[in-house]
Amino acid sequence: MRMYDLILKKKQGGELTREEIDWMIQGYTKGDIPDYQMSAMTMAICFNGMNDRETGDLTLSMRDSGDTVDLSSIDGVKVDKHSTGGVGDKTSIALLPLVSSLGVKLAKMSGRGLGHTGGTIDKLESIPGFKTEISMDAFISQVNNIGMAIMGQTADLAPADKKLYALRDVTATVDQMSLIASSIMSKKLAAGADAIVLDVKCGSGAFMKELDDAKALADAMVRIGRHAGKNCRAVITNMDEPLGRAVGNAIEVREAIDTLKGKGPEDFTKLVLTLGSRMVVCAGLAKDTAEAEEELKKAIDDGSALEQLKRFITAQGGDASCVDDPEILKTAEGVLELKAQADGYVQHIDCDEVGMCSLVLGGGREKKSDIIDPEVGIYLYKKVGDSISKDETMAVLYYNDKEKGLAALERLKAAYHTGTERISPRELIIGEVD
Amino acid sequence: MRMYDLILKKKQGGELTREEIDWMIQGYTKGDIPDYQMSAMTMAICFNGMNDRETGDLTLSMRDSGDTVDLSSIDGVKVDKHSTGGVGDKTSIALLPLVSSLGVKLAKMSGRGLGHTGGTIDKLESIPGFKTEISMDAFISQVNNIGMAIMGQTADLAPADKKLYALRDVTATVDQMSLIASSIMSKKLAAGADAIVLDVKCGSGAFMKELDDAKALADAMVRIGRHAGKNCRAVITNMDEPLGRAVGNAIEVREAIDTLKGKGPEDFTKLVLTLGSRMVVCAGLAKDTAEAEEELKKAIDDGSALEQLKRFITAQGGDASCVDDPEILKTAEGVLELKAQADGYVQHIDCDEVGMCSLVLGGGREKKSDIIDPEVGIYLYKKVGDSISKDETMAVLYYNDKEKGLAALERLKAAYHTGTERISPRELIIGEVD
Repeated sequence: MRMYDLILKKKQGGELTREEIDWMIQGYTKGDIPDYQMSAMTMAICFNGMNDRETGDLTLSMRDSGDTVDLSSIDGVKVDKHSTGGVGDKTSIALLPLVSSLGVKLAKMSGRGLGHTGGTIDKLESIPGFKTEISMDAFISQVNNIGMAIMGQTADLAPADKKLYALRDVTATVDQMSLIASSIMSKKLAAGADAIVLDVKCGSGAFMKELDDAKALADAMVRIGRHAGKNCRAVITNMDEPLGRAVGNAIEVREAIDTLKGKGPEDFTKLVLTLGSRMVVCAGLAKDTAEAEEELKKAIDDGSALEQLKRFITAQGGDASCVDDPEILKTAEGVLELKAQADGYVQHIDCDEVGMCSLVLGGGREKKSDIIDPEVGIYLYKKVGDSISKDETMAVLYYNDKEKGLAALERLKAAYHTGTERISPRELIIGEVD
Repeated sequence: MRMYDLILKKKQGGELTREEIDWMIQGYTKGDIPDYQMSAMTMAICFNGMNDRETGDLTLSMRDSGDTVDLSSIDGVKVDKHSTGGVGDKTSIALLPLVSSLGVKLAKMSGRGLGHTGGTIDKLESIPGFKTEISMDAFISQVNNIGMAIMGQTADLAPADKKLYALRDVTATVDQMSLIASSIMSKKLAAGADAIVLDVKCGSGAFMKELDDAKALADAMVRIGRHAGKNCRAVITNMDEPLGRAVGNAIEVREAIDTLKGKGPEDFTKLVLTLGSRMVVCAGLAKDTAEAEEELKKAIDDGSALEQLKRFITAQGGDASCVDDPEILKTAEGVLELKAQADGYVQHIDCDEVGMCSLVLGGGREKKSDIIDPEVGIYLYKKVGDSISKDETMAVLYYNDKEKGLAALERLKAAYHTGTERISPRELIIGEVD
């Protein structure tokens, strides 16, 4: 086989066979195929696309390019969850204890990555003592013992994807649906779960700005999951404004805890129940999502979800007393308030700008070596559709460095768009692929 | 400027500015822009194209990436000629002495390259003593003294093109009209002539198989030439069967000599007169091509073209007695004949296969280090449309290695398609851009 011929075939609109894709991906991972041929290929794919079979085969080949996690020693249906990412996304921290309190087995690997705030791993580490660097054996036995575990990704999952993504990132070939979908799914499939529930964010603060694109991505990922023989479904959710009210690290953990106490923000609670009910159904522990949602609400009401959160924190070395005493999850002492300039309504909150506030404060990473400050963050008292009175506090931010605090406040001010007309906020759940 | 942004712009169908193209090409030549970004760019260009302005600017930037030849110390209009290449193309060897016998100044640089037969440089070197490795000073003074010179390309002309072509060659991005046209024209423009006449070959034995493609290439090159302020015109000529009757090196020089004696094959003679008349007009030495063609015919008839060929050979150290005594241009002693199997007509001669015969015999290069055997070759007694009788000789081949000779004969047999119906050969001159 020659890479030249494969590039030419795709350029001319042809369909790559499973063998061709596998030869290409394994060869690229090993370094036998040079970057300059692969980037010509990805650009040709941007123009001529890949069909479902090609996309599925690409994903499987990337999955098989490195380690795959074997969860077979865990009884029951192992369910994974993935979000395409947005601002204020602390979902896993509330969702996983809630769902596992009903008996769903959750063995979740999570990366750190770059972003406005830390990843789930970083947020969890704002709990004193919490460890995410645990061994694979400890990870699996914890799931067998208490039903869930979250570990930092240590295994070499889908190295082909890592290499290919880095190349796409510098050759303007990131935004191709098959390539995006296969990138996400190759890592999910390598992580070994039986079923996967996907949260595809859509809106100004998401990678997918347009509903059509979000739908296409959700469709593509669900088809890949099925191509791989996995139970897979996706929910498309709003990311036109930050999720919930808290943006940061410790502050987001607090909000997740509040949510399991039944006191969470409406939108975030709805998201957790929606994704959670799909996970329960995927695990075969409820006949439909309505029944599952009732069970989940009960687990919040009777405190069993909160108990599971404590078990989870304790199992990973963390101080579970933070669940009852949120002050243990310290927020920074420096506080600045954003006040309304006039009476009216919040009409739009620029997600990315709120995220940038968090980054400016030190709550996220611009480069891998950056150290996250877990104490900083933003709390949004007012969200889209809320009425405001002149001088009322719309949001506060917590800083450890005054200069950064003031810079962040300027950005936060610019992020809030207000006016005299009331705008209805967008529905949280925009669509679903099942 | 960031290469990422330029790739994205072209991918989205945008137009690259002159500054962007120049930054990209000079950066790529220096190695500041990596191959993997450039190959993504060339693939995007394959899909979204470049307009005339972009194509012209790309060409100028590639021209300026290395040395450019200064012909200003030569009086008069310097005319260059370029052929896109085919089988049996010995045009320059007859054409240049003929045209320069009318006073047109010709300072031609020629490469060796790879192919079925050698390039013009290799063919000329089958003349005993002939030197093509001459200094730039000797080259220019020879043009001032006798009106013409042909030297092997020593200057570093358009290194950007060399690097880019090598990349396109392994990333399936060769066949894009703007990239093809700019590649050819960047070297022509760097070679310093005032006017350029292009011979665009079209047919099964040419790079351009289809007339539409050949026309598009001719158009693109002429527009580039004008963008660069040069007088430029193109002729589209048939390459569905080999040009003339001789294919090889010494044997092609013999045919070129015969042509200047007025005894050349009809098609080749017509090509020389057609291209020659355009060159004479470009040089301002005739009012139109008809007048120019009459002058050229006269130069053949009165022997002045042949005299000029002798002067040219002598000036470059060659034995000009070969012009009167062609036996000096040795052909190999081993001879094999291809005989007709039945009465009928030659309906088609597969150009590429005839070329492969020459290569198999040792008349061309597969890799740069191959040494050409000037004595081997093929002579086609029968061409398309000619009648044949059973057992009549259709072609002969000259070999120095019997085994290679027999292998070549098999290919030659397969190259000839005969039948009972007479096919009219395609016109030699198919089109023109002026």
